[in-house]
Amino acid sequence: MNLNVYLAGEIHSDWRKELKEKAENLPVVFTGPMENHDRSDGIGEEVHGAQPDSISKDEAASRINNLRTSLLLKKSDLAVAFFGESFKQWNTAMDASAAIEMGKPLILIRPKSLHHPLKELSSRASVTVENISQAVQVLSYVFEEE
Amino acid sequence: MNLNVYLAGEIHSDWRKELKEKAENLPVVFTGPMENHDRSDGIGEEVHGAQPDSISKDEAASRINNLRTSLLLKKSDLAVAFFGESFKQWNTAMDASAAIEMGKPLILIRPKSLHHPLKELSSRASVTVENISQAVQVLSYVFEEE
Amino acid sequence: MNLNVYLAGEIHSDWRKELKEKAENLPVVFTGPMENHDRSDGIGEEVHGAQPDSISKDEAASRINNLRTSLLLKKSDLAVAFFGESFKQWNTAMDASAAIEMGKPLILIRPKSLHHPLKELSSRASVTVENISQAVQVLSYVFEEE
Amino acid sequence: MNLNVYLAGEIHSDWRKELKEKAENLPVVFTGPMENHDRSDGIGEEVHGAQPDSISKDEAASRINNLRTSLLLKKSDLAVAFFGESFKQWNTAMDASAAIEMGKPLILIRPKSLHHPLKELSSRASVTVENISQAVQVLSYVFEEE
Amino acid sequence: MNLNVYLAGEIHSDWRKELKEKAENLPVVFTGPMENHDRSDGIGEEVHGAQPDSISKDEAASRINNLRTSLLLKKSDLAVAFFGESFKQWNTAMDASAAIEMGKPLILIRPKSLHHPLKELSSRASVTVENISQAVQVLSYVFEEE
Amino acid sequence: MNLNVYLAGEIHSDWRKELKEKAENLPVVFTGPMENHDRSDGIGEEVHGAQPDSISKDEAASRINNLRTSLLLKKSDLAVAFFGESFKQWNTAMDASAAIEMGKPLILIRPKSLHHPLKELSSRASVTVENISQAVQVLSYVFEEE
Amino acid sequence: MNLNVYLAGEIHSDWRKELKEKAENLPVVFTGPMENHDRSDGIGEEVHGAQPDSISKDEAASRINNLRTSLLLKKSDLAVAFFGESFKQWNTAMDASAAIEMGKPLILIRPKSLHHPLKELSSRASVTVENISQAVQVLSYVFEEE
Amino acid sequence: MNLNVYLAGEIHSDWRKELKEKAENLPVVFTGPMENHDRSDGIGEEVHGAQPDSISKDEAASRINNLRTSLLLKKSDLAVAFFGESFKQWNTAMDASAAIEMGKPLILIRPKSLHHPLKELSSRASVTVENISQAVQVLSYVFEEE
Repeated sequence: MNLNVYLAGEIHSDWRKELKEKAENLPVVFTGPMENHDRSDGIGEEVHGAQPDSISKDEAASRINNLRTSLLLKKSDLAVAFFGESFKQWNTAMDASAAIEMGKPLILIRPKSLHHPLKELSSRASVTVENISQAVQVLSYVFEEE
Repeated sequence: MNLNVYLAGEIHSDWRKELKEKAENLPVVFTGPMENHDRSDGIGEEVHGAQPDSISKDEAASRINNLRTSLLLKKSDLAVAFFGESFKQWNTAMDASAAIEMGKPLILIRPKSLHHPLKELSSRASVTVENISQAVQVLSYVFEEE
Repeated sequence: MNLNVYLAGEIHSDWRKELKEKAENLPVVFTGPMENHDRSDGIGEEVHGAQPDSISKDEAASRINNLRTSLLLKKSDLAVAFFGESFKQWNTAMDASAAIEMGKPLILIRPKSLHHPLKELSSRASVTVENISQAVQVLSYVFEEE
Repeated sequence: MNLNVYLAGEIHSDWRKELKEKAENLPVVFTGPMENHDRSDGIGEEVHGAQPDSISKDEAASRINNLRTSLLLKKSDLAVAFFGESFKQWNTAMDASAAIEMGKPLILIRPKSLHHPLKELSSRASVTVENISQAVQVLSYVFEEE
Repeated sequence: MNLNVYLAGEIHSDWRKELKEKAENLPVVFTGPMENHDRSDGIGEEVHGAQPDSISKDEAASRINNLRTSLLLKKSDLAVAFFGESFKQWNTAMDASAAIEMGKPLILIRPKSLHHPLKELSSRASVTVENISQAVQVLSYVFEEE
Repeated sequence: MNLNVYLAGEIHSDWRKELKEKAENLPVVFTGPMENHDRSDGIGEEVHGAQPDSISKDEAASRINNLRTSLLLKKSDLAVAFFGESFKQWNTAMDASAAIEMGKPLILIRPKSLHHPLKELSSRASVTVENISQAVQVLSYVFEEE
Repeated sequence: MNLNVYLAGEIHSDWRKELKEKAENLPVVFTGPMENHDRSDGIGEEVHGAQPDSISKDEAASRINNLRTSLLLKKSDLAVAFFGESFKQWNTAMDASAAIEMGKPLILIRPKSLHHPLKELSSRASVTVENISQAVQVLSYVFEEE
Repeated sequence: MNLNVYLAGEIHSDWRKELKEKAENLPVVFTGPMENHDRSDGIGEEVHGAQPDSISKDEAASRINNLRTSLLLKKSDLAVAFFGESFKQWNTAMDASAAIEMGKPLILIRPKSLHHPLKELSSRASVTVENISQAVQVLSYVFEEE
């Protein structure tokens, strides 16, 4: 049995690379957002051409990024959401909550320092861990027989 | 990961051929309505034999065409809806709306001249573009990693 | 038992007034879009202030009109969709299709002259009629005991 | 027709009071989270008694607060989500996204300064506005006939 | 607590009258199909005018009767399906199965003589009984406290 | 694209064999009930041992046959329901209605002589035909490009 | 706003009476299973007459009790499940799990001594408490404003 | 056609091994919980490190075990639930009920001695049998053609 796992969260660090390496022996296909930050912010202009202002640029990009996220999240069996120490990351919370409402199991990764502001999301997640190795342990456990 | 994409819209032009050519490198299977216009209008009589009048002929055909659309749309991961300058195209609007209600991402292609009458549908679509190349850019973006 | 019925369709004529009068003895609450055409087109600027161009004005309005339609349609038990001889009426087709996908019974009213372009939608509707009196007859029949 | 509206967002300011006052003539019942911040944080210990540490205290409280939110959100016809200039507000993003996935129309209120970090959520909301009066205008519009 | 109960089945006998009388003390609103058999068969022509043949007459009527059934069944909390000794009653089986798929509890009433041909439907029903009094006993039991 | 098609209906004739032969060039996997009539009636006793009476025997068999039907119907993309001139065939009507409620397209095959008693089911089916060749034509049409 | 709350669990003690008394000031309608144990076990024979053996008696009763539970649980906004020190209570676990799958918030009441065997259910419940007063506190909190 | 079958129930005996051996010729992939009892109880500490007490240890483990069960159950086509003579097995009842609510067919295996306490669950299961061989017979029957 193969699983399809969506990796939601910041695209400023290379946490997905680390997770994929640690999970390389698992029968899992990983998907996620565009990780090139400039292309992610600029995809609206790339498709529609130059926009009059930064708000229009953002709107054009966010619709295309949402299409990608929504499509890949729906095809996934499980989602992982990663919160780092920085950034507002409201779309990480949005994606994590969407996964929960769709009935997908969710593994939440967040540093202990973010416990308080993430307590409601943590409570609704399937499992909350503090680092990537722990998330891979949980993922691996789904396939283990003994 | 492969995607299944339904192409809703007029069958009077060869826009699907153009789109498929531009997307030929993507791991996508395209489906859509019967593109032979005479067969599409005549499939009711082809199956049931000659009908007493054009209304009966239309009713017989539309049930079979709806069966095809409904089945293929449900199996798709994403839908594209194309509106050209001509024709009433109410079934394009019907298919696009059905896709949205089923939770499928929708790419709407329409000339800028149709902005006003399609503003509500455009607002509910995932992404609205003006030509086929832009639709393929969006589709391609789902698979790109950087 | 009371029913809640959504009236989808053009806001250029007073067909809703005629239907409500003919159905005044039925235990039905009717809802529908904003019928003042100028306010419907202008609600985006009314809320957000003047917009830079007509496309932005349309986008702002259509999101608010879609919110209203979506909310009222979801609360309805049945939808009526009216197509007149004029106008593109793609949002009528969109609303009618949304109602069908939500599992709401749909009564389609359209002049016989529009039979061919509406044949697929007619085939998916619960009942298709040609005038408002017939639609009210169908609605009334739901409540009649003999 | 009456509506039930859930007010998601920070409980540090009195934005709900302002919104309710401005909407006092609408046939709307408003619900929302516990607005007394100390009780919201302390409800876990209020029910279960003193907890060994702040993490246990938070976990106990968040389950009870999530029960309340989940129940009231599901009973609502529409949700409003308010983001202020301060606080992480990840549970506001979580509630807003849950409302969207449940198919509830969502009005997002956020200052223009938060446009960029909220662009994906704004794009998925039904309508985004910048202040409470605008949100009430949109709410009111659902009930207006002309 | 009030319940809404749909009574599916033949309209040739007055079993609904008997059931309603026996259940007159329960807080239940009963709905069902048009019980006047001539009007039920003729409603298509009543609305659309004379039809060219009996098949067209039947098609016109069945769409209107299906609209009524579908609407009332969806609003019900529970369905009762009655099979008598005579008639083909395929639409009774259709309505009973639709109720089951919608997750409505179903009470099946059938004479013991029909046990074999109805064994699959009986097995999927919530409860199968042999007469109307037993069905009312089951219905009553839902409200009893001891 | 392959389709999975469930063949509901009587197991007394070899209509499935005829249909499969006529559709042998289509990329379709067909499923259906146990076609050996004695095993279908006797599967309850085969599993649980001899039963005290024919009603118990029927109940034991019908639960196992329902498990099979329910499982295979849910995995199918489309259902075909066949009514012959004889037999009560209430479980055919039950399976057909279940398929419709699950949102599966349904092709109904019935002789013209059964038009009247099957008019409601026919109206809810996607397409109604009179013989197996016509059903295969409709099935084939889903795959044809011109 | 009124809530409808289903009380799942043993019918051997009067825990429901205690809970209702403690919640008497809340705008809640409580429902639950038949609490008269003899009638609950005997309802099958009450409706169908004497059964040949205790297994048939149980089967007849359980279908009627399941109809009641399923109907009332579906109409509820929230469920409470009570586990006492004795009895197998597998139907309490069944009802609690059904409520969770239906998306109803669940309050689980169980003595601390049952922590280990109920750990998975406790983890899936919205909130777990140890006594009836705590459950009423949680219920009350849903209505409190400060 | 291949099936995916989830095996819910106790992990203290080797009933799964017996079932898999007896079903080795069927095109079925079996999944289930972690069968190593110590790892199942200890997976929380394995991932999160030592916990302060047995309740915390249990909570940590149950979230991870629930993630596994929920994911695998959702991917399955059918579930088997096994109750032995010993143990409380509330999570077996929980998993069985979850499968039923998800619309998965359920085969319940239980010794005759447990008939009374399991009568409600047995009544809601698709098929109830008394031993593993009977369960395999039912499973096999889904694939048999005559």
